[in-house]
Amino acid sequence: MNSRLEKLMSWLKAKQIDAAFITSPDNVFYLTRFRCEPHERLLGLAVFQEEEPLLICPGMEVNDAKSAGWNNEILGYSDTDNPWDLADERIKLRMPIIKSWAVEKEHLNVSRFEELSKRYEQSTFVSADEILNELRLVKDEQEVKLIKRACELVDFAVEVGVNELAEGKTELDMIAAIEYEIKKKGAGMSFDPIVLAGANAASPHGTPGLTKIERGQLVLMDLGVVYEGYCSDITRTVAFGEVSEKQKEIYETVLKAEAAAIELTKPGVKAKLLDQTARKIINDAGYGEYFPHRLGHGLGISVHEFPSMTETNELELKPGMVFTIEPGIYIPGVAGVRIEDDVLVTADGVEVLTKYPKSLQIIE
Amino acid sequence: MNSRLEKLMSWLKAKQIDAAFITSPDNVFYLTRFRCEPHERLLGLAVFQEEEPLLICPGMEVNDAKSAGWNNEILGYSDTDNPWDLADERIKLRMPIIKSWAVEKEHLNVSRFEELSKRYEQSTFVSADEILNELRLVKDEQEVKLIKRACELVDFAVEVGVNELAEGKTELDMIAAIEYEIKKKGAGMSFDPIVLAGANAASPHGTPGLTKIERGQLVLMDLGVVYEGYCSDITRTVAFGEVSEKQKEIYETVLKAEAAAIELTKPGVKAKLLDQTARKIINDAGYGEYFPHRLGHGLGISVHEFPSMTETNELELKPGMVFTIEPGIYIPGVAGVRIEDDVLVTADGVEVLTKYPKSLQIIE
Repeated sequence: MNSRLEKLMSWLKAKQIDAAFITSPDNVFYLTRFRCEPHERLLGLAVFQEEEPLLICPGMEVNDAKSAGWNNEILGYSDTDNPWDLADERIKLRMPIIKSWAVEKEHLNVSRFEELSKRYEQSTFVSADEILNELRLVKDEQEVKLIKRACELVDFAVEVGVNELAEGKTELDMIAAIEYEIKKKGAGMSFDPIVLAGANAASPHGTPGLTKIERGQLVLMDLGVVYEGYCSDITRTVAFGEVSEKQKEIYETVLKAEAAAIELTKPGVKAKLLDQTARKIINDAGYGEYFPHRLGHGLGISVHEFPSMTETNELELKPGMVFTIEPGIYIPGVAGVRIEDDVLVTADGVEVLTKYPKSLQIIE
Repeated sequence: MNSRLEKLMSWLKAKQIDAAFITSPDNVFYLTRFRCEPHERLLGLAVFQEEEPLLICPGMEVNDAKSAGWNNEILGYSDTDNPWDLADERIKLRMPIIKSWAVEKEHLNVSRFEELSKRYEQSTFVSADEILNELRLVKDEQEVKLIKRACELVDFAVEVGVNELAEGKTELDMIAAIEYEIKKKGAGMSFDPIVLAGANAASPHGTPGLTKIERGQLVLMDLGVVYEGYCSDITRTVAFGEVSEKQKEIYETVLKAEAAAIELTKPGVKAKLLDQTARKIINDAGYGEYFPHRLGHGLGISVHEFPSMTETNELELKPGMVFTIEPGIYIPGVAGVRIEDDVLVTADGVEVLTKYPKSLQIIE
């Protein structure tokens, strides 16, 4: 039994919940190290206080689950089986009557919830979302290693983008070059890459396009890589040729705000303080209304995960947390600047995992 | 009011259901032509028998919804608003008491379902999944036009892959080249492209990798493009250099099965007959156990949608249906061959929308 599962089992015990039925691919991966995208088919992990956990997956995935290191029982089913009936039998062998199930209410759909409710009429259903968020919040050594590798790859992705930027190139040219090089490294993007130039970067819905990037424009690149199931997420904004004093001022303001938030990051500090500090710098420079989003978000198996780094989040930072710090200023019709790094809270401070340089780079 | 909405409203009336609350981005897009990926934020479309429909979306999306042509009421909310409270008010203006809601039980999560159940305590909740599947099943002229364009682009994607195939190239080289060229056309892939060579293509979980493709291998490419919200999906298998007689025999068997299923496609024929016919040809050739999946799936806004083209599906084909026909033979350790086209059921037969040639191509 791995320690992640043990923690979930202890939680069930402490809360006197009979069992958990986990269905989201990300949480199943977290608990089993087995990554499965079952689409409309059933993927489930039944976890009990004491009994052996049961993994339910399409039959053709069974070998993959074993290869991923899952040593507990696996129920593989074919497309003509009813996986609920089969699972029921195995679950009943462990616990004849289940009085309470924990399920991911933010993920489980109503059809499946009705199926469970019908089969376990005597059961109540409580949320497993909070405990899973909490477990995933602090990354272990292996997770940090994978995130670091994803960060190295995304630093390289920015380098590819910067090298591609030249007279006559479009936003989509840059994206295509980045995806090409990352694929060739055997990794993938954790979300559709964003490259936006000039005023396009100031729109909340700028879509990368086929217009040529012009000299004098700032170019924003927001890129993420996924490596062995773990994500990175970086934003860099560079200048194509000389840009105006105004654009430089915006850039320096964002950079100062980002640096201040990073500087503050250490165990015991509240998440909200980071957002408030960055926001104050941007407000004081007169750009407050142009910073419309939160400071950042947790990062790991999901590219956006718990916690949300907002100006009201009371959560205290703990060693092992990984999140983004990404203030931005977006002036309609002019430019958008965002600078984003992935940071790890260490025993006594912070380690910045994305390392691509941040002083304003002017590409000639 | 567009005709898609009118049909949903008529259904509510016929079934005596007060209102529908639609939350999946694909169905909201279908009904409003507004594409929104709200992530954890609420996107909802409330539809009534008679009253004006109400679109609920994040405030920063309101302009996009209008630009997409949505002329009915829009409720945009900020991150500090409670969108449920605001929606409630507007819904109550239309219907003070709602006794039955139709919701997408296959999509709506339990948290949101509990929120609705709490707010509409007197309401029952029925499934909207079937009617939406049925509405989307028959494509209108505009939809067919977009799917055709996505198919042209995916034909081009195969061509790019074939041109890239050469001594020393890997599966990932081919994928990178394909993604690059499709991006440059201003379109995107509808799923992660699959290129698998030799025995790799015979595994249900072959993952494209960095091993060089060898002469004498069959190379399977499964590619999809999304164009203005509509998907294509094609598979071609080509030979890199001369391949064995055995491999050629497998190829010809799959091609014959695919052609037979296409040949049968016309209004009034049952879906199952297509699968059964292709399967019989593969069975008769002695490869039945190596064709483990259904014949195909519906295609449109989603790359996999209703109907499922299985050997038991009694659905009668109707003009305007678009689906894939994609038999395959996968012999462990040897090769995998799949040939897939997207077809449109016409008034009196079938139009094959993907047109890349299918006779076995030997790339030297």
